[in-house]
Amino acid sequence: MINKDTMLCMSLSARPGNFGTRFHNSLYEQLGLNFVYKAFSTNNIEDAIKGIRALSIRGCAISMPFKEACMPFLDTLTDSVLAIDSVNTIVNDNGHLTAYNTDYIAIRKLISQYRLCQSQSVMIHGSGGMAKAVIAAFYDAGFKNVTILARHEAAGQSLAQKYHFSAVTHPTKHYDILVNATPIGMSGGADSDKLSFPAELIHKACVVFEVIAMPVCTPLINEAKRHNLMTISGREVMILQAVEQFILYTGQTPTDAQISIAADLASQA
Amino acid sequence: MINKDTMLCMSLSARPGNFGTRFHNSLYEQLGLNFVYKAFSTNNIEDAIKGIRALSIRGCAISMPFKEACMPFLDTLTDSVLAIDSVNTIVNDNGHLTAYNTDYIAIRKLISQYRLCQSQSVMIHGSGGMAKAVIAAFYDAGFKNVTILARHEAAGQSLAQKYHFSAVTHPTKHYDILVNATPIGMSGGADSDKLSFPAELIHKACVVFEVIAMPVCTPLINEAKRHNLMTISGREVMILQAVEQFILYTGQTPTDAQISIAADLASQA
Repeated sequence: MINKDTMLCMSLSARPGNFGTRFHNSLYEQLGLNFVYKAFSTNNIEDAIKGIRALSIRGCAISMPFKEACMPFLDTLTDSVLAIDSVNTIVNDNGHLTAYNTDYIAIRKLISQYRLCQSQSVMIHGSGGMAKAVIAAFYDAGFKNVTILARHEAAGQSLAQKYHFSAVTHPTKHYDILVNATPIGMSGGADSDKLSFPAELIHKACVVFEVIAMPVCTPLINEAKRHNLMTISGREVMILQAVEQFILYTGQTPTDAQISIAADLASQA
Repeated sequence: MINKDTMLCMSLSARPGNFGTRFHNSLYEQLGLNFVYKAFSTNNIEDAIKGIRALSIRGCAISMPFKEACMPFLDTLTDSVLAIDSVNTIVNDNGHLTAYNTDYIAIRKLISQYRLCQSQSVMIHGSGGMAKAVIAAFYDAGFKNVTILARHEAAGQSLAQKYHFSAVTHPTKHYDILVNATPIGMSGGADSDKLSFPAELIHKACVVFEVIAMPVCTPLINEAKRHNLMTISGREVMILQAVEQFILYTGQTPTDAQISIAADLASQA
């Protein structure tokens, strides 16, 4: 039961969903922590951040379109943020706001967990905030042979130069690992039924890494599964980044079983 | 269960208690409303108010020491606030913040509910924020024969002039209705075991009206009960003002039975 000592954690996004609220509240309950979580939106990111500081709100997840806009109002930007100029997590320690990017942290962990091999060739599709996290994570994990596929040629070239990768606007050869960091295949989007890579590229890849969490099975994932490729889903990214946030906010590490219960609850329609 | 559509209401005070959080959350649950309530403190009232607006927090109770300090940051001050220059409730309608004083409203309602008679003489002890609410409520209810008992002579005289009442620093005669609007008798305070009026005044009064809610039975209330006086307790003020806040935030009016359940729950240690 909420009382005067209950800590509030929250999220800020243009269109709040239920995943974070359900996921964190389920873990608070399972671990017996006096916390509560709620999703918010705002039309004034500066005042929203001021409010987080003034009200001692313990933590805040940041989603589109505030991931860069929030940065001027924070106190410390950690390595994960500096790597990609994008914030998805704020931790409030007595009014001092520290920024993290747990998407980047989650992708690093998944690269390691699934033992993706540095010698493999990688194609990353996208040049937005999530693509930046993916590109930096592969770079920092030691991958050298990475190609960025970006509709926006200048954005792709700029990212490629930063990491000594290459950039193309159309894929010309095959790659071992395909990573989708675009909204192609996302439910509710204009391209929800489209593949984010040409079918022949998918058929010749070894690993397909999808960052879209809704639906769990995008056209890309379905196509990869039909050809028995190894797949890493956006749901895994979403859960892992949320667990990282949970640890940052509470200092507690939930068990895999607790995470699984929270994720199943949070994924219910 | 909290989800993305859950509305947040809150309180701001130097030392948050549990009453409001438990009271409102109990009523939300009983009425099946998708709201959640939590107490906050702050060291920056301006940014806290900005945060309320930016995060679309639906309502906020204001306690000491922010009742006057918050006023420059609000959009509309209603009559109850203008009467006493003190805010205890903020309602947020799409970023427009309207201020109320439900202590004033509650005292007006109790004067009416207990049929206190305008022709009776009244002594009100105190000259702070709550005393202002009490004095304005008795004035607006049509009472003419009111004396303010104030240790701070200038404060008492100033309030008396405003309402054409009189002010004294020591009581010199007897009064039908005694109202305590000082912290004398409050648990945890320096004067927790003291009577807020001389015993002989209490013995000759008809009605004792206490605004202190903790404890429910102050020395004043106990002395009044020993002499079979009619008593109105600070707990009644606290509950009634919280009900007014609840109605302002949610647009729903709870039943007396629902209020009673919430108040009993909220009063548990």
